[in-house]
Amino acid sequence: MRILGIDPGIATIGFGLVEMDRGQGTMVHYGVITTPAGLPLSRRLYQISQDMDSLLAQLKPDVMAVEELFFNNNITTGIAVAHGRGVILLAAEAAGIPLYEYTPSQVKLALTGYGKAEKRQMMEMTRMLLKLKALPRPDDAADALAIALCHGRSMSSRLPQNQNVKQTI
Amino acid sequence: MRILGIDPGIATIGFGLVEMDRGQGTMVHYGVITTPAGLPLSRRLYQISQDMDSLLAQLKPDVMAVEELFFNNNITTGIAVAHGRGVILLAAEAAGIPLYEYTPSQVKLALTGYGKAEKRQMMEMTRMLLKLKALPRPDDAADALAIALCHGRSMSSRLPQNQNVKQTI
Repeated sequence: MRILGIDPGIATIGFGLVEMDRGQGTMVHYGVITTPAGLPLSRRLYQISQDMDSLLAQLKPDVMAVEELFFNNNITTGIAVAHGRGVILLAAEAAGIPLYEYTPSQVKLALTGYGKAEKRQMMEMTRMLLKLKALPRPDDAADALAIALCHGRSMSSRLPQNQNVKQTI
Repeated sequence: MRILGIDPGIATIGFGLVEMDRGQGTMVHYGVITTPAGLPLSRRLYQISQDMDSLLAQLKPDVMAVEELFFNNNITTGIAVAHGRGVILLAAEAAGIPLYEYTPSQVKLALTGYGKAEKRQMMEMTRMLLKLKALPRPDDAADALAIALCHGRSMSSRLPQNQNVKQTI
């Protein structure tokens, strides 16, 4: 099962592909999609869309796991990130890839057993679970790997967000 | 000049096409794109994307004017709408259509001369400026026509949001 984790954004989108096999995750690929701050929002969205389409065609994930947005103080940034996240979800849907969404707390809980774990703990758990000597940089890519692992550790209990459950009765 | 006004959303997206000729706007077409509440977000985004692509191919606007988001109390709805707006901006960019963005206040100011005009006043001005007997329904379509008119009345002074100004020196 190839799980593509995505840490959504507008300036930097982290991605991390993890192969899960009998509960053990192996890192396959990771990186970031970036867009320059000087570009108009619509151009940045177009670039993200193009890059996401290429990424999905190249990495061929079985499922995609995307973090849900957590709005802190900066609502202007939050709105821009939500625009970007819309384009990311669209890419998964257009490619027919089952999509799962996790809150930051769910990711923390799945990896450390504690929904309010600190970033440092999260990074360390991600490194250990993937049996890496050091965590990939930048943080956005490491976050994306954590999201992929979160799905790998909880997938048995969930149905994809974009798949309707058909009642047989 | 064919101006497509868009009132962004996730459940209902209003659109209104206005032909501007020497300061006078004529309504060409209007309507709404809707997505059912029961569908997963990614499916709704995909549907909006498909419908926007068809709309742009069919209506062939010269420019598109999209309202900026105004976040009121419901941040959950606001986030979903921002996802939808991302997909709408993407459609314009992918079709190579110059894009303009206006805040609700700018639309009100352009139509009534007052940035805090009431909805009723706005609707009446839209009806009068387009020389209609009655305003189109639903409100989302009428709002989209108002946005198109806003652009028509202010376009001489603005450059498209997605067009970079090339310095010749």
